[in-house]
Amino acid sequence: MTRASGEAAAAAAPAQPDAGLLSPVRVGTAVEAAVGDGAWLQALLDAEAALARAQARTGTVPAAAAEVITAAARAEHFDVREVALAARSTANPVVGLVAALTRVVAQKAPEAAEYVHRGSTSQDVFDTGAMLVAARALHLIVADLRETAASLAALAGAHRDTVMAGRTLALHAVPTTFGLKAAGWRHLVLEAVARLERVAKESLVISLGGAAGTLAGYLQYAEQAPQHAGQTPAEAGEAMELLADAFAAETGLARPVLPWHALRTPVTDLGAALAHTAGALGKMAADVQVLARTEIGEVAEPAPAGRGASSAMPHKRNPVLATLIRSAAVQVPALAAVLAQCLPTEDERSAGLWHAEWQPLRECLRLTGGAARAAAELAAGLVVRPERMRANLGLTAGQVVSERLAAHLAPRLGRSAARELLTRASQQAQDSGRPLGQILAELPALAGVVSGAELARLLDPRGYTGAAGALVDRALRE
Amino acid sequence: MTRASGEAAAAAAPAQPDAGLLSPVRVGTAVEAAVGDGAWLQALLDAEAALARAQARTGTVPAAAAEVITAAARAEHFDVREVALAARSTANPVVGLVAALTRVVAQKAPEAAEYVHRGSTSQDVFDTGAMLVAARALHLIVADLRETAASLAALAGAHRDTVMAGRTLALHAVPTTFGLKAAGWRHLVLEAVARLERVAKESLVISLGGAAGTLAGYLQYAEQAPQHAGQTPAEAGEAMELLADAFAAETGLARPVLPWHALRTPVTDLGAALAHTAGALGKMAADVQVLARTEIGEVAEPAPAGRGASSAMPHKRNPVLATLIRSAAVQVPALAAVLAQCLPTEDERSAGLWHAEWQPLRECLRLTGGAARAAAELAAGLVVRPERMRANLGLTAGQVVSERLAAHLAPRLGRSAARELLTRASQQAQDSGRPLGQILAELPALAGVVSGAELARLLDPRGYTGAAGALVDRALRE
Amino acid sequence: MTRASGEAAAAAAPAQPDAGLLSPVRVGTAVEAAVGDGAWLQALLDAEAALARAQARTGTVPAAAAEVITAAARAEHFDVREVALAARSTANPVVGLVAALTRVVAQKAPEAAEYVHRGSTSQDVFDTGAMLVAARALHLIVADLRETAASLAALAGAHRDTVMAGRTLALHAVPTTFGLKAAGWRHLVLEAVARLERVAKESLVISLGGAAGTLAGYLQYAEQAPQHAGQTPAEAGEAMELLADAFAAETGLARPVLPWHALRTPVTDLGAALAHTAGALGKMAADVQVLARTEIGEVAEPAPAGRGASSAMPHKRNPVLATLIRSAAVQVPALAAVLAQCLPTEDERSAGLWHAEWQPLRECLRLTGGAARAAAELAAGLVVRPERMRANLGLTAGQVVSERLAAHLAPRLGRSAARELLTRASQQAQDSGRPLGQILAELPALAGVVSGAELARLLDPRGYTGAAGALVDRALRE
Amino acid sequence: MTRASGEAAAAAAPAQPDAGLLSPVRVGTAVEAAVGDGAWLQALLDAEAALARAQARTGTVPAAAAEVITAAARAEHFDVREVALAARSTANPVVGLVAALTRVVAQKAPEAAEYVHRGSTSQDVFDTGAMLVAARALHLIVADLRETAASLAALAGAHRDTVMAGRTLALHAVPTTFGLKAAGWRHLVLEAVARLERVAKESLVISLGGAAGTLAGYLQYAEQAPQHAGQTPAEAGEAMELLADAFAAETGLARPVLPWHALRTPVTDLGAALAHTAGALGKMAADVQVLARTEIGEVAEPAPAGRGASSAMPHKRNPVLATLIRSAAVQVPALAAVLAQCLPTEDERSAGLWHAEWQPLRECLRLTGGAARAAAELAAGLVVRPERMRANLGLTAGQVVSERLAAHLAPRLGRSAARELLTRASQQAQDSGRPLGQILAELPALAGVVSGAELARLLDPRGYTGAAGALVDRALRE
Repeated sequence: MTRASGEAAAAAAPAQPDAGLLSPVRVGTAVEAAVGDGAWLQALLDAEAALARAQARTGTVPAAAAEVITAAARAEHFDVREVALAARSTANPVVGLVAALTRVVAQKAPEAAEYVHRGSTSQDVFDTGAMLVAARALHLIVADLRETAASLAALAGAHRDTVMAGRTLALHAVPTTFGLKAAGWRHLVLEAVARLERVAKESLVISLGGAAGTLAGYLQYAEQAPQHAGQTPAEAGEAMELLADAFAAETGLARPVLPWHALRTPVTDLGAALAHTAGALGKMAADVQVLARTEIGEVAEPAPAGRGASSAMPHKRNPVLATLIRSAAVQVPALAAVLAQCLPTEDERSAGLWHAEWQPLRECLRLTGGAARAAAELAAGLVVRPERMRANLGLTAGQVVSERLAAHLAPRLGRSAARELLTRASQQAQDSGRPLGQILAELPALAGVVSGAELARLLDPRGYTGAAGALVDRALRE
Repeated sequence: MTRASGEAAAAAAPAQPDAGLLSPVRVGTAVEAAVGDGAWLQALLDAEAALARAQARTGTVPAAAAEVITAAARAEHFDVREVALAARSTANPVVGLVAALTRVVAQKAPEAAEYVHRGSTSQDVFDTGAMLVAARALHLIVADLRETAASLAALAGAHRDTVMAGRTLALHAVPTTFGLKAAGWRHLVLEAVARLERVAKESLVISLGGAAGTLAGYLQYAEQAPQHAGQTPAEAGEAMELLADAFAAETGLARPVLPWHALRTPVTDLGAALAHTAGALGKMAADVQVLARTEIGEVAEPAPAGRGASSAMPHKRNPVLATLIRSAAVQVPALAAVLAQCLPTEDERSAGLWHAEWQPLRECLRLTGGAARAAAELAAGLVVRPERMRANLGLTAGQVVSERLAAHLAPRLGRSAARELLTRASQQAQDSGRPLGQILAELPALAGVVSGAELARLLDPRGYTGAAGALVDRALRE
Repeated sequence: MTRASGEAAAAAAPAQPDAGLLSPVRVGTAVEAAVGDGAWLQALLDAEAALARAQARTGTVPAAAAEVITAAARAEHFDVREVALAARSTANPVVGLVAALTRVVAQKAPEAAEYVHRGSTSQDVFDTGAMLVAARALHLIVADLRETAASLAALAGAHRDTVMAGRTLALHAVPTTFGLKAAGWRHLVLEAVARLERVAKESLVISLGGAAGTLAGYLQYAEQAPQHAGQTPAEAGEAMELLADAFAAETGLARPVLPWHALRTPVTDLGAALAHTAGALGKMAADVQVLARTEIGEVAEPAPAGRGASSAMPHKRNPVLATLIRSAAVQVPALAAVLAQCLPTEDERSAGLWHAEWQPLRECLRLTGGAARAAAELAAGLVVRPERMRANLGLTAGQVVSERLAAHLAPRLGRSAARELLTRASQQAQDSGRPLGQILAELPALAGVVSGAELARLLDPRGYTGAAGALVDRALRE
Repeated sequence: MTRASGEAAAAAAPAQPDAGLLSPVRVGTAVEAAVGDGAWLQALLDAEAALARAQARTGTVPAAAAEVITAAARAEHFDVREVALAARSTANPVVGLVAALTRVVAQKAPEAAEYVHRGSTSQDVFDTGAMLVAARALHLIVADLRETAASLAALAGAHRDTVMAGRTLALHAVPTTFGLKAAGWRHLVLEAVARLERVAKESLVISLGGAAGTLAGYLQYAEQAPQHAGQTPAEAGEAMELLADAFAAETGLARPVLPWHALRTPVTDLGAALAHTAGALGKMAADVQVLARTEIGEVAEPAPAGRGASSAMPHKRNPVLATLIRSAAVQVPALAAVLAQCLPTEDERSAGLWHAEWQPLRECLRLTGGAARAAAELAAGLVVRPERMRANLGLTAGQVVSERLAAHLAPRLGRSAARELLTRASQQAQDSGRPLGQILAELPALAGVVSGAELARLLDPRGYTGAAGALVDRALRE
């Protein structure tokens, strides 16, 4: 089809659901399954069922009704597309879902249908469902991060003393070790784990506020229950506490201080922690891409058959995992920023800011989750080539330790003179292509100041790794 | 399921495709269908088929083979999930799609299979497909925008002289007209149309560069064709021009100056125009939300049965369309920023920045498209209440024309004194709740300066709309 | 000057420093002073001085030299513009600053000049200085947030039972209380405090890595000190620990696990916490803007003379503080996203991502700090108008408790029938402008179901605030 | 000072103006001077003066008064800090500036003071001033871009046939030429010029709306002028047109269709074009950083004395210009996104979104302008090393043309078999380190299929640059 015929066809085409075609970083991962429309629908239903059970616990819904609702609240009874389509009239999918759930329940037990979504509001169900989805996804992400960290610990330990060029502003600076680099990657991953676990523990909370955050609807029904006739305001407070505790227990989520329909810290916290995680993994990916370059060749990605193939060039083994991770790291901060931009929500429920959170939150979860999976594979199979590291370290023929030489000469020549001498000699080495040591050995100014043997010792990059080994040890104790 | 059992289940769940559950703004719209995975897959296939036909035109692929490839290149022959899954090994979906297409072609005509994706590279096919998708989506979006603009023109004309409070920094400022407001919305929509059409015309281009942007693969095959033996460099240039022209003709897309694998202006341009469009529609939505507030009530959204229902409150008719539009307007700028952040791509093809563009580009298209559809419905059915506008205009009992009074008194009292007098009198009116006119009438300083009749004339908001009418006329001539 | 003559002039104009002209939200605040170029320069000098003292503690710099360096390290000895200009040749301001500091030290004591910036690297000084700036700014911000929270606690307590309309999707939903609203604002502010204090305690760390993160330069000098001759690798580790501890002690900052030149969590953490804070304050501002609207009038900003004046309209008292806060809340998330986008830094120091952090980090600090100051003023002086709240609550003449009526009737009519009855009756009320109670009283379906007295009781919004009071109490115990 | 003492000091410190310490990319450039607080203040004054002259042209202000106002409107008469500080009470700097300007005018000619800012509103002056600043900055930026493009054209021409490795996903792909790479950079720069010039021509417009966009204040004064007594509505339209034309003529800016206080396309357009420009320059910087790597060494930045010096390592010549450019390219898209997020402004003037635009707009201008200046220097002095390109091209010993070999063998072995053979042979070459040609020469499957001479010809990278030369020619014709 050409563009024009496609334009006509496009107007008529039925929508096909998305299967991950444009997002290879997460396709086929467990996190993708845990946050997709099917899983999200189930989480909304889990929230409805948990609410009914919580209300049963507190005596405002019959236990039998809660059981029927729980049994009915299975995603397989619903057509997710139909629920989705209904949301265009109401701006959220819960209104339609409640109607559908009520029908399913009514088929099983008409009297139970009276108790579906009782006293509730769309946002309570949606937000609680979203927190369940997030909890499930974080669980998977953290597992992959821990696996990544374990592999990186092994790499850091094995290469504690593998010397390589430290690079700053794209150029060789002074020597470092691959162990220190791997320890740094691991440290970032552990920082990400700490942030995600903190969010999982503190920020994943039930949503229970009713129409405008006062729980009035829930309490109205509670008050109408025979045993609660003549409820006093103090009793309203107690009823609220009981219901919230019960809902938290039924969902496994924490309780917030206040209903958070319009106090969106949980979502902002999630976004911030996921942006950090994606970026932390992106650091490893960025380094792998540099080190895997044809000219550098210090590491290579694991390459099982077919991985990294090009549609054009038979010799290519593309660094696919780092590419996927980077593709996520570029997107997540912007999506997390959308979540932060939704904090200044107006009123008791925003007309649009709440709705703008949903898709970015899911994308943050699945992009980061996909990146974590790729990172686990990358760390587990990374090929490290110490011989290439050594070879590259020799490329500047001594300049990579110019800082050391300057420090050594400083007490002898004065710091400023020593620095200038090294700057000039390095420039000469670059222009002529001759080794720095050779140029220095010929300098009259150094005659008698530093011996040939001393110079040779100082020029050995292996002797100038500072506290790299100790830092690896320190980091691995974490 | 609770959180914990959900965490276990999540690890095992099969992924279900996404059906739009979290994005009501675009669910069920034509643009959603035009940019979904199914449509995108078809566009990739369209690009492969167009390439084969273009190569047939230039004599390097047999016409019969191009026909077979074209016939095979139908999305219904492929499993989009399988293609998507394969992309995790290669970082893009084209490698797997080419293999699958080759198999389908081989079943129809084995000799034709030799000509699939000949001399090509994944990015040529993906980017050309993406541009086809964009062309089809822009076509739909522009149609909805034009429909919106037409409705707004009618509103602006009908309410050219409907006076209402102009509001700045949330407060009544001076009078304006609803016609001028609607004309402003329309102007923004027309600016969006102009930007989208410019992009559609100038920036939607074929991608044809081969492995690294030199077209070497295409030309290698061309050179091997019997009729091209002994091709000179000059002939290589001609062959490139012929092939590119043919590919452009077959796709209906424009030709770029250079292959743009790593020169990503087309994608940035799309993002920028879509961010403008979403924001332009967001302006209308923001105003509708203000004017629809319970206390203001100057407009109401069209409310067919069921639209705007709440799951909790029977009386609610939520301004759903404005809510949906705003939810898109919040997201698109951040997604477009991701596209701009991908411009500084390294090398002849980036390891990650290219891949990061895909999903944000699609989201920009479908969020904006969904917003455009909602805007068309909103503009067509907006309920305008001139009587509420008049009533609200009276709320400050004259202060809304304090600027006019100050200007009128300036030549008589001096500007600064006039201004101070009005400031004090307005403050008094606010504190006492008495009409400004009454307070002014009692001021000794104004005795003999302005008559009661003059004051009454000046205090009529209808007389202080400046050039509002002329501006509406001017805008409608656009 | 016209545009054209301005274009010519612009090419020749000398730069004038920025005095906050475009950023009223922070102009004149303590945070502005704490993060400006002058303060930043001082912080860089503080880092240099602390380093020298730390090296003196560990015996590699003479104590006298450290004293001279500390005395020289005062911003007033340097021309900040000159230091800034020098950075264009080296991409960071430290190279030039070290040269200038060395000159100042040399004037005081030539032998001390040898010890300036000894073994160090620009990034150690810059990042340590940045953390000092951040620590000072957070201190100020948290103080303003605590002041804000205290004022809001008073408001929440005073208005614990002040009933007002709860609003969702821009419309009246069900009643709530102003106390609950203020308690929600306060809760967000306290969440912001918790996040900022966590960052201040955990993430504000010294930077000490030397040229490429191994501390080799520092240790080279340490090793050369007479007392350290023949240092073993184990001793290198000890020397590193001692130096880092001393530097942390001298600066008052925490110690990180590893040098973080390329592990940028501290900066990302700062960005995330500041984006949350700005957004949290933005929520209060958004609500104030709604409630201060001319038609709503439920709150007003404090208005000392001159505050909120318009250049055009004498009667205006613009809600300036909320405007300023919102202007910050819109900017900070995007700036914080830049910081997160800099996490995937390549190598041991990025060629550009490090440099991209500086200005956004400062803007995050001063925009948020300015917003916190404005919030403190706003919360302290907010005018609350219970009588307007009551009046507005009456606007829908009963519809604001339609949920309650539906719940009450559900056991009597069936939930679905009750809901439909209320939907129809509310629609009728909206169309006719008659009170909902009157319409219900006339309904045959309700004859004998609900008495007039019962209806009157149910229709009183004051009786339908659910657990609002208990939630306020709960929140204030925080 | 330690952190704690600093915290105390910070609370008391007077603010020092910013001199560019944290933004080396723009420090000392002409654009910095053109958009700083001093220049911005002058532009606001230029707008006031132009307005007075326009009103003089249309007969509502005496010509003599306009002259006095023009003479008074010089930045040197004002204290920019005082104007900035006053803005904290009114949320914008114009209110205070008008008061100050009125005082200065009154000193010169008391009667002229009546005519300052007559009928006007802060936003008219601020936005017109902002557009003047933008016009002046764009002028400078475009000049630097043109200079950059000219240098790149020379590079592209000189290196039209300089063969180098094309790189995709960080690995050698197939050969390309440096000429084509430079032509691509230039093409992006020219695309940026086209976008900026379009914005300069179409989007830089006067702001003239009065208090709420109806020009009522201007017309009120006009009507009061003796010659306009008894103005009809039609005359109001004419008066508006005359005034707007005169204001446009006096400023050199274009006229918009409607007042744009709340229709913010001009600002969004600016942001989009600047984000494109910064990103386009970022592409060149990203490539330079790759090619300048120690291991690659194919290009080097121009290195006048002192440029690129490190505070630690004497041998370093950091690629400073590319670093500066990249630091801008990372920031501008996020800042431009803030501008797009301000489009959905509510009412006739937003309470916060307008105010949020100012600083991001200026940062977009000066970061992009600084990057353009750095790019001009970089392009003018870039050192290109064809011999390193040739050497690197040999690194894969033939694999860089595996695509060509596959294409050549396809007709002989079948495409799929040819591809598999090359994949296997390339893998063998990578594992063994032997040249691909040698491995192929030994393959029994190729015996008789391709001669040694043919193989040698095919393996020469210089023979596989496709249409690179023709593309350079095509691009340079642009």
